[in-house]
Amino acid sequence: MKQQQFGVVGLGVMGQNLARNIERNGFSVAGLDLDPAKVQQAAAACSGADIHVTADLKEFLAHLSLPRRILIMVPAGKAVDSVIQGLQPHLAPGDLLIDGGNSYFEDTRRRLKALSGSGILYVGTGVSGGEEGALRGPSIMPGGDPAAWPLIKPVFQKIAAKAPDGSPCCEWIGNDGAGHFVKMVHNGIEYGDMQMICEAYFLMERVLGLTPDDMHGVFEEWNTGVLNSYLIEITSKIMATKDPETGKALIHVILDTAEQKGTGKWTSTVSLDLGIPAQTIAEAVFARMLSALKAERVAAAKVLTGPTQKFGGDPKAFVKSIGQALYASKICSYAQGFQLLRAADQEYTWNLDFGSIAALWRAGCIIRAQFLGRIKEAYDRNPGLANLLLDPYFTGAIADASGAWRTVVATAVQLGVPVPAFSSALAYYDGYRSAVLPANLLQAQRDFFGAHTYRRTDKEGVFHTKWE
Amino acid sequence: MKQQQFGVVGLGVMGQNLARNIERNGFSVAGLDLDPAKVQQAAAACSGADIHVTADLKEFLAHLSLPRRILIMVPAGKAVDSVIQGLQPHLAPGDLLIDGGNSYFEDTRRRLKALSGSGILYVGTGVSGGEEGALRGPSIMPGGDPAAWPLIKPVFQKIAAKAPDGSPCCEWIGNDGAGHFVKMVHNGIEYGDMQMICEAYFLMERVLGLTPDDMHGVFEEWNTGVLNSYLIEITSKIMATKDPETGKALIHVILDTAEQKGTGKWTSTVSLDLGIPAQTIAEAVFARMLSALKAERVAAAKVLTGPTQKFGGDPKAFVKSIGQALYASKICSYAQGFQLLRAADQEYTWNLDFGSIAALWRAGCIIRAQFLGRIKEAYDRNPGLANLLLDPYFTGAIADASGAWRTVVATAVQLGVPVPAFSSALAYYDGYRSAVLPANLLQAQRDFFGAHTYRRTDKEGVFHTKWE
Repeated sequence: MKQQQFGVVGLGVMGQNLARNIERNGFSVAGLDLDPAKVQQAAAACSGADIHVTADLKEFLAHLSLPRRILIMVPAGKAVDSVIQGLQPHLAPGDLLIDGGNSYFEDTRRRLKALSGSGILYVGTGVSGGEEGALRGPSIMPGGDPAAWPLIKPVFQKIAAKAPDGSPCCEWIGNDGAGHFVKMVHNGIEYGDMQMICEAYFLMERVLGLTPDDMHGVFEEWNTGVLNSYLIEITSKIMATKDPETGKALIHVILDTAEQKGTGKWTSTVSLDLGIPAQTIAEAVFARMLSALKAERVAAAKVLTGPTQKFGGDPKAFVKSIGQALYASKICSYAQGFQLLRAADQEYTWNLDFGSIAALWRAGCIIRAQFLGRIKEAYDRNPGLANLLLDPYFTGAIADASGAWRTVVATAVQLGVPVPAFSSALAYYDGYRSAVLPANLLQAQRDFFGAHTYRRTDKEGVFHTKWE
Repeated sequence: MKQQQFGVVGLGVMGQNLARNIERNGFSVAGLDLDPAKVQQAAAACSGADIHVTADLKEFLAHLSLPRRILIMVPAGKAVDSVIQGLQPHLAPGDLLIDGGNSYFEDTRRRLKALSGSGILYVGTGVSGGEEGALRGPSIMPGGDPAAWPLIKPVFQKIAAKAPDGSPCCEWIGNDGAGHFVKMVHNGIEYGDMQMICEAYFLMERVLGLTPDDMHGVFEEWNTGVLNSYLIEITSKIMATKDPETGKALIHVILDTAEQKGTGKWTSTVSLDLGIPAQTIAEAVFARMLSALKAERVAAAKVLTGPTQKFGGDPKAFVKSIGQALYASKICSYAQGFQLLRAADQEYTWNLDFGSIAALWRAGCIIRAQFLGRIKEAYDRNPGLANLLLDPYFTGAIADASGAWRTVVATAVQLGVPVPAFSSALAYYDGYRSAVLPANLLQAQRDFFGAHTYRRTDKEGVFHTKWE
């Protein structure tokens, strides 16, 4: 029987497309799905390729060359555990399981521990780029057992997207749950990017009355400058798309209630757990939750009042300012994301290479952008950089944008247009650059009502005052 | 041997003070602490009272009348489990354990399940008011096994603070972890209140150059109006307090790095888990984390630039506007807290009485305020109120304040003073009153890159577009 070089379990579109990508790059594939309908779809999608698909576990295993390399592409959670349980009795020491879903990094850590000692290698890898990325070249963030890296490197670096400088968007992230953690932060940053683009759109529509056609042009232009990125590019295309049924701009017939999956929420809860201010990403998550309360909002809009004044400035200049606000806010959001990576690196001793992480997000993934090259350069200049904001490029970029940023947020506030991510990012920037914050009062309050003690500015030690 | 009516385990200041409060209200107390030093301190603090303290478990138990009612006042976490494990073998069906610490509500749920079937009753209760409140009358939020309520009601309602109308600040909250959940939200709201007062202080100091003496007067005046509350009262007193060593205002020698315990963070993570936008409370938690990065901020202040312009308006009018911004922001923060209670009530079927919860926060606890009476009235008017913002009183209060609120946030943004809670609250308000939000673009993006589908405004169903 012919032996295939790589196994894929879970033949949904992501699994199919990764299988096709792997095969196209010269590695034969065996695919397994317990659902015969999915096997049939996959067989059709993979026809002509050296991909053997089946619904039979034993057949799948018999078709794999040793050591077996099996990529699991099933929904995060219990499904991953049950696939591992199903496979484990049939595996031998040296075989490798790779979870390519959006698993919570603590689950990956738990699974690594459970398999340690069995001789079976385990990897949790982030795969970003959606279904198209899976087929054409995703960004891949593998972490786990370092002994597995030589087994997957030749395959993953071939199937991964290539950055503008030709380097593959896949590097070993670190041991333990590092791969899935980095993918989680990628997704948290993605939540922030999407929310900030929505705020830019909302301001242009609400404050300036721009049409989707107008905004198509704005986003297209932005995509030629510092904001150049996949999300700006697709937003430009979205603005130009008409609804075939009504002839209206499609954006205007889409309901404004956002869905959310686990990764954005996890980024926020982990930032709270690690004590890292990542409030802009959290505001993006909360904004999705608020959007989901459609019926409440429609009712509230009839009761709650807001300003009636109109914008009195220069629309063209304001559009430019919105772009600058978006860029400055984006820098803050990424700074928060990288602070979170730094905190996790210290907590779990993963030895993360922040510049390398930025580099492998330059292509393939949803947040891909020229901008990531700037971040890589910042860490190249100073691998111990305390915060992205302190890199000369970003310090200068925000300084250039900050007047416009403040004008945009102040205008939104005065006109009643919610810009939670823009304003949270600005408060983060102004807080981070404040040598003194008003938490001295907070400490006084805590000492007053709870005898929690405080420290002083003029000497070491812990103090308590008998207040009143 | 004389039998005492109530037991207290853990004789730190909170435990001692609650014991003294219980005894003063006519119930004899037995106290246990395994640390002989604490027993000695407690004996001194409780001298002359009918309180028998010991470091011996058997002696403690022998001194309790049946059914035993034992209040556990030890730090949340493992200490609670070990106290329960130590006591359980010596207890009989009908005995009652009450955890009065700031336990995470899921821990309380777990402990309730573990004890169910043993015949031992279990209660998790919030106790707010700090050490002074414990002695003079705290706000008490008990939940758990409803059969326990008759055993604690006469004691707890006597020792609790009394609201202005004379009613005790203790009512049965609900079964399961309801008591500790409500206490957690109380603390999250407290985080918000403290952060917002800090922002008001920061604006007066940074924008207007007011001295602590000036601000003493401002907070004193605010305490006579709608902002009347314990936290405003103590802030006024803090502003008037001098440092005996330097003669300076004490507030100016206290270091601006805030500590935080679990409850504020939990409120934020739970709001994320339940999908409830409670971003203003989360911003308050993140603000504490940012304050803790003192060394980073001091370094950043030398590099990152901000506006140099000065305030050009009327200082007296701006102080008044800051008060209005504080009040409007506070309403939004409480609205978020009560939305979180509502979501938990639906998730866990606790049958919470929101008006009753507001009522028992009117005295004794840290967030005590006239304001809570307004919230009680709102739920009296409409127990099914979808959001506090929709109650006519609060709708009107925000409408009255909103011009000033917008001016304050816009001014802060233009002058570079971070007001994360004020601005997050305003974005929440403007988002909640928006019948349409820009999440339509977000859904288009998700459908574009991930085929996540979307809904339409003009018909039911789930749709996907072949973009480009």
